[in-house]
Amino acid sequence: MAFRLRFRRRSGTGAPPGSLVADPAAPVPQISFIAYGRDRFEERALDSAAEVAAVVGSFPVVWINVDGLGDAETVRAVGAAFGLHPLALEDVLNTHQRAKVEPYPGILFTVARMLRLGEKGVDNEQVSYFLGQGFLVTFQEGRPGDVFEPVRARLRSPLSPLRELGADMLLYALVDAVVDHYFPILEGLGERLDAIEDRILSHEGSAALRDLRILKRDLLELRRAAWPLRDAVQSLLRESTPLVHEETRLFLRDCHDHAAQILDLTETDRELAANLMDLYHAEAGQRLNEVMKVLTLIATIFMPLSFIASVYGMNFDTTRSPWNMPELKWVWGYPFALGLMAAVAGGLLFYFRKKGWFGRKSLS
Amino acid sequence: MAFRLRFRRRSGTGAPPGSLVADPAAPVPQISFIAYGRDRFEERALDSAAEVAAVVGSFPVVWINVDGLGDAETVRAVGAAFGLHPLALEDVLNTHQRAKVEPYPGILFTVARMLRLGEKGVDNEQVSYFLGQGFLVTFQEGRPGDVFEPVRARLRSPLSPLRELGADMLLYALVDAVVDHYFPILEGLGERLDAIEDRILSHEGSAALRDLRILKRDLLELRRAAWPLRDAVQSLLRESTPLVHEETRLFLRDCHDHAAQILDLTETDRELAANLMDLYHAEAGQRLNEVMKVLTLIATIFMPLSFIASVYGMNFDTTRSPWNMPELKWVWGYPFALGLMAAVAGGLLFYFRKKGWFGRKSLS
Amino acid sequence: MAFRLRFRRRSGTGAPPGSLVADPAAPVPQISFIAYGRDRFEERALDSAAEVAAVVGSFPVVWINVDGLGDAETVRAVGAAFGLHPLALEDVLNTHQRAKVEPYPGILFTVARMLRLGEKGVDNEQVSYFLGQGFLVTFQEGRPGDVFEPVRARLRSPLSPLRELGADMLLYALVDAVVDHYFPILEGLGERLDAIEDRILSHEGSAALRDLRILKRDLLELRRAAWPLRDAVQSLLRESTPLVHEETRLFLRDCHDHAAQILDLTETDRELAANLMDLYHAEAGQRLNEVMKVLTLIATIFMPLSFIASVYGMNFDTTRSPWNMPELKWVWGYPFALGLMAAVAGGLLFYFRKKGWFGRKSLS
Amino acid sequence: MAFRLRFRRRSGTGAPPGSLVADPAAPVPQISFIAYGRDRFEERALDSAAEVAAVVGSFPVVWINVDGLGDAETVRAVGAAFGLHPLALEDVLNTHQRAKVEPYPGILFTVARMLRLGEKGVDNEQVSYFLGQGFLVTFQEGRPGDVFEPVRARLRSPLSPLRELGADMLLYALVDAVVDHYFPILEGLGERLDAIEDRILSHEGSAALRDLRILKRDLLELRRAAWPLRDAVQSLLRESTPLVHEETRLFLRDCHDHAAQILDLTETDRELAANLMDLYHAEAGQRLNEVMKVLTLIATIFMPLSFIASVYGMNFDTTRSPWNMPELKWVWGYPFALGLMAAVAGGLLFYFRKKGWFGRKSLS
Amino acid sequence: MAFRLRFRRRSGTGAPPGSLVADPAAPVPQISFIAYGRDRFEERALDSAAEVAAVVGSFPVVWINVDGLGDAETVRAVGAAFGLHPLALEDVLNTHQRAKVEPYPGILFTVARMLRLGEKGVDNEQVSYFLGQGFLVTFQEGRPGDVFEPVRARLRSPLSPLRELGADMLLYALVDAVVDHYFPILEGLGERLDAIEDRILSHEGSAALRDLRILKRDLLELRRAAWPLRDAVQSLLRESTPLVHEETRLFLRDCHDHAAQILDLTETDRELAANLMDLYHAEAGQRLNEVMKVLTLIATIFMPLSFIASVYGMNFDTTRSPWNMPELKWVWGYPFALGLMAAVAGGLLFYFRKKGWFGRKSLS
Repeated sequence: MAFRLRFRRRSGTGAPPGSLVADPAAPVPQISFIAYGRDRFEERALDSAAEVAAVVGSFPVVWINVDGLGDAETVRAVGAAFGLHPLALEDVLNTHQRAKVEPYPGILFTVARMLRLGEKGVDNEQVSYFLGQGFLVTFQEGRPGDVFEPVRARLRSPLSPLRELGADMLLYALVDAVVDHYFPILEGLGERLDAIEDRILSHEGSAALRDLRILKRDLLELRRAAWPLRDAVQSLLRESTPLVHEETRLFLRDCHDHAAQILDLTETDRELAANLMDLYHAEAGQRLNEVMKVLTLIATIFMPLSFIASVYGMNFDTTRSPWNMPELKWVWGYPFALGLMAAVAGGLLFYFRKKGWFGRKSLS
Repeated sequence: MAFRLRFRRRSGTGAPPGSLVADPAAPVPQISFIAYGRDRFEERALDSAAEVAAVVGSFPVVWINVDGLGDAETVRAVGAAFGLHPLALEDVLNTHQRAKVEPYPGILFTVARMLRLGEKGVDNEQVSYFLGQGFLVTFQEGRPGDVFEPVRARLRSPLSPLRELGADMLLYALVDAVVDHYFPILEGLGERLDAIEDRILSHEGSAALRDLRILKRDLLELRRAAWPLRDAVQSLLRESTPLVHEETRLFLRDCHDHAAQILDLTETDRELAANLMDLYHAEAGQRLNEVMKVLTLIATIFMPLSFIASVYGMNFDTTRSPWNMPELKWVWGYPFALGLMAAVAGGLLFYFRKKGWFGRKSLS
Repeated sequence: MAFRLRFRRRSGTGAPPGSLVADPAAPVPQISFIAYGRDRFEERALDSAAEVAAVVGSFPVVWINVDGLGDAETVRAVGAAFGLHPLALEDVLNTHQRAKVEPYPGILFTVARMLRLGEKGVDNEQVSYFLGQGFLVTFQEGRPGDVFEPVRARLRSPLSPLRELGADMLLYALVDAVVDHYFPILEGLGERLDAIEDRILSHEGSAALRDLRILKRDLLELRRAAWPLRDAVQSLLRESTPLVHEETRLFLRDCHDHAAQILDLTETDRELAANLMDLYHAEAGQRLNEVMKVLTLIATIFMPLSFIASVYGMNFDTTRSPWNMPELKWVWGYPFALGLMAAVAGGLLFYFRKKGWFGRKSLS
Repeated sequence: MAFRLRFRRRSGTGAPPGSLVADPAAPVPQISFIAYGRDRFEERALDSAAEVAAVVGSFPVVWINVDGLGDAETVRAVGAAFGLHPLALEDVLNTHQRAKVEPYPGILFTVARMLRLGEKGVDNEQVSYFLGQGFLVTFQEGRPGDVFEPVRARLRSPLSPLRELGADMLLYALVDAVVDHYFPILEGLGERLDAIEDRILSHEGSAALRDLRILKRDLLELRRAAWPLRDAVQSLLRESTPLVHEETRLFLRDCHDHAAQILDLTETDRELAANLMDLYHAEAGQRLNEVMKVLTLIATIFMPLSFIASVYGMNFDTTRSPWNMPELKWVWGYPFALGLMAAVAGGLLFYFRKKGWFGRKSLS
Repeated sequence: MAFRLRFRRRSGTGAPPGSLVADPAAPVPQISFIAYGRDRFEERALDSAAEVAAVVGSFPVVWINVDGLGDAETVRAVGAAFGLHPLALEDVLNTHQRAKVEPYPGILFTVARMLRLGEKGVDNEQVSYFLGQGFLVTFQEGRPGDVFEPVRARLRSPLSPLRELGADMLLYALVDAVVDHYFPILEGLGERLDAIEDRILSHEGSAALRDLRILKRDLLELRRAAWPLRDAVQSLLRESTPLVHEETRLFLRDCHDHAAQILDLTETDRELAANLMDLYHAEAGQRLNEVMKVLTLIATIFMPLSFIASVYGMNFDTTRSPWNMPELKWVWGYPFALGLMAAVAGGLLFYFRKKGWFGRKSLS
């Protein structure tokens, strides 16, 4: 449950708000620069944050992507170049924000959480977007895997309609990339649900239960990420800012649909997981029932039989009186005793079958 | 749980929004054309999407129905003929949309989900509607079964009031057909609920439980379809668009009532299913109780009896002392022992009956 | 669960909306006419729907009550006489509507559901009201029992304040009669709850559980009727229509209070029913505990005793060696063995009592 | 569950609304009169309702308190003197109203429910307030216990700031008295929760469970009273009426805080009660586990031992063959058999201890 | 559950509102004075409440912090110096308020609850803030531990941006300090959750369950504190008052995010705790299953064996007839009997293994 530990200000509870303190364990920032207009396109890596200031406003749309949050100074410098608010920059570095949209003067600050399949189940990392007039600045935590690559590929194509549109459309494309990335992970969870169901039904209950518990935790984590994400996309859709054009809102509506579907599927999976818990308990109960029936069957048959044998094992003196265990001296005494036992056993078996304990209609 | 797999963009997560990519496994589109006015009516199949452009505006109401989504080009061409937005057309092809209503300039785009009883339980398919001035374009997935046929039959009758009304009334009729189709399926689920209840009560618990689980999943699926459907009909009812007339809204209000009833019944069925789960557990617990009581009865009666028999099976030397098992030499020793056993068994049976274990008031 | 079957359009899913199709099994309509003003009052039965047209507007308040919905033509004719909308009339005949209030031009259409105690538990029937300027038209399903009679009795009294008020006050009185009729049925359910509790506590668990399940279904049905009823009364209260006067709204507020109380009590009863389920499980678990304790007590005492007896029933040859079961030849051998058994049994009983299994503090 | 029976109109379901019918079993009304202004104060009992009319308007603030609702005529007369609406007066007599605030022209009608600890658990009675210009009329059910006394005491003090304020402040003070009276009762319930927890932990499960069920019912009743009370105080706070001054609203906000706390605590207690139910089940399950372990231990040890003893109790003829039970003739045969038994018993005990059944880490 | 007892007015239910009554057990108030402007800073302790009046307005921002609520007169005097409303001062002394924001004329009154880890689990104390033009007055309960210290440290630094900002920014900083203090406590609870999970899995069920119950109570307490806190911060954020500047609202939005995260994490922990309860029950059920299987295995194997031995322990007279237990006289009789027993035992073991009771796929 390492995710809980992330939810503290990196700057410490005593630091003034707006302080930028980087996580020393985070990757070193890589700054990439993409800029385009109707007929122009440029893409290159920037060596240092100082270069950023030079490119501001050079193209109709300038996109600076900072990958890795290991250096607070880089974040500060990029922020200064575009006039980003220190409070928003602090949120960039404290990578525990819930997905949200916050308007600042002239800037729309958006946080999304990108789902990842980590070693210990579902994890997620923070992606921050600053949309301004003619530019978009994005910050990623810089761990392996980059959902932005397909968008870059589209931008590189000279025919891409994206090139003719503004930075708000780029924001949409990059948020949409994060949202769409939830689907394969949800599919993976669904497959795990199915596998657990199969294992419970084939009586691998105990281990399956442990996996089910982990899956439920993953679903909880997913919901905790997806719920604010949907609300954030909705905020983006409804925010009354001139930075987002009407046409882009149509696309954001589409993105909101996807986010709503993700939440919907998560809730469905949570309910299916609860049903599996029920299934486990029913299977375990049935198993216990079965065990107890076998015990009862055996005990109920052999106790009377043993009792009969014990009776004829008593040592009453047959010589003293004709009433003392005359069966022992009967010519057919032993076969009679065995027959009596067989009759008792057969009668009990018949009774149990009639009660339906071992017929087809049996509960177990 | 194949339904989960459907919830991805067919166009791939990297494709730009508005890309139209058809599912190659989907049926080939069949285009049908129905057009009518107060005194006119025409119905025919169109061979290709190219013919669509020619019929636009030829009648007061033109209805193009595309059945089968196997060819993206057809969808694109039909969309182009009526000026439909690419984003909406993408939603037509990605048949995993939740029911919704989205206004585009001059067009009202509606998605509904039609419930179907598939081989693996309740399934649903997507129906898309584009309402414009004087036309309605509908897209179906093209699987067997067509809920639109009764509406077509009504249109063919020269006396149908539908002929005098606009395309919005046709939209209502076709949405209503989809909504009304939920009722027979809900009835089927209700009958399955009743059957499962009967089977649990006649102790077919285990198999019934498995069916109950499938039923619960079907109800979950149904709710997931019905909830957005109701909201979509409500949006249709409240959308401030000149495309939907006041009189049509009265009818949509009726349709909204039906959708609300469907959701209501689904929730009721879900609660009844939960009650059945309770019933199963109570029945299984009762069965266990019963089994344990039989075990306890038998054990409690025969253990003392066997003990008595064992005692008189001991080999103490009666010749050494008059205290050593004098009963063995009694004339009535054996009858005494049998009588003692009968007395103990009778006493225990009396005690159990008094405790109510086997009387009429017994829990089991 | 016959109630589910009612929830389909009687006119068939393919029929155009507004079609009036009567249930052939429904009672033949009886039309009653009551009309009054400040000084006038008239009450009589109308032989046919044709007579209705003649009485429209003849008094300040005209109340037409149609009891029985077996003839669509009658409903159509009555509707035509007062200008009622076909869609609303269709709702009258499809007696599966949720309680609702729908404004039509010049008419306020209200549907309420009247609770009835049928043979198979709680059932409900539909009552439809059309309020217009100077008239009220009501439709009942025409089954036995009429909650309108007390209102009629008040109207017959020349001193009744109702006579001086408008049709909206009559609507209030008739809706209030339906709402108030829920209370005795809720009381009946409460008494059943109490009876089931008593039976569970006196160990009649199994049958009581079955009754509890039926009761829970009845409560579900009641809630399904009461929830929309409360909302409908609230709509009536808030509807901005000149048909309902300010003074009447004060009364409707009172009626809304009652409907809210009904829902409140239903929810309370549902929670009490859930508590009874818990009680049943606790009682059943306790019973199982008790049974297992008796089994364990008996087994734990008699197994060691039988073992001792078995030991002295072994046939080792005492003549071969002084180590072979010398006890058998002791003078006090048998009393020693019996004493040993008594000591073991006593020790175990003491141990169990000390563990609190059979003392006053025992769980069972 | 007598509280359910209270929820019916006393006037009968057939009576016209506004009918005043008193419960004949209710106490005879006692009318008290308190009036005050900045420098004046008068307090006396009124002998009959007729005297009420004379005191209207005689002081800046006139407070009439009617204690006991056994006479409808008194209520009618008091109502007539102050121009109270018959519908509100009916609510006064039908003492089953939920807490509410209803504005009538010139009058603000408030109902609160006062919690009382009755013989059969938590009960509540109705307090009705009519606030008008310069007067407050209150009605209580007249059972023992009066939460208004402290307010009266404050009014009697010449220095009380209340004397300088209007009737709305008096209304606040009297509603606040009712709300504050919930706290001691909540404390009592909390103490009962603690006591039940102790008893479950000391294994008095069964009786504690019964008390827990009663407590849960009390909490249900409390919530049913507290929820509308909070909403009523909020209505009072927000009602746009000139009868309540801005300064009084500050005080009502305080009162609303208290009502919200009461609801909060009730919900917390309900959750704690649910936790106790869990605790009970866990304790009972643990007890069963413990019983079963003892049974298994005893059976598992003595069954093999008895089997060995039985084997050497067989009667094979040792004279016929050296293979027939030679052990019986061994010199150390008996000690060998006893040793074998001890070894088996010791081995099993070792195995069980190793499995952790009886070690410190045992589940039970 | 001592926290329940705190929820009563200290002034008694009968006292008039606005009465200031201190808890005699509370610490003696310590008054500290901090004041600052762009270039000035002063910090000192005040000896008595009388000194407070002198410092009002002496600096751009004056912060009076009262630590300890043991003297009502001090609170009254401080309140008088700044014109604080008696009702708000009463809330300061009755330290059971839910977190809230209440506007008074010229003053914004805020209550927050500071979480503390007490001896008996999570506890919380009240912090009250009065924001006015140019001043902030805070009251703490004065128990050990002071979350305000880091803010003081920042103020002492001449370069702190706080010095240039108004009292509203100081309010934000002090509320934020309280909110941030929830995170370490949440982390502690998360660690306890993990520890309990480990203990349940290593079969320390019973004690772990007890700890889990305490943890659930702590989470309940935490939620009860965090829910109103989030709402209070939101109120602060949205309150339309000139006392809070636009820039400060940006910071409060950040604080609101943190409060929302706290609630989010609390709910997640509550769900994880519920999952642990499930885990406990599954583990306990599995343990019972295991115990019962061992019992059944032993009983099922030894009962038939003992029966066989008992049969050959019967005393039928072999001399009377060749049918009477001829096995006893067989040369290989004893080995035959032992072989028969071995065959039966082996067959049963084979059967059980085939049923999967003891194989790898076993439920337990």
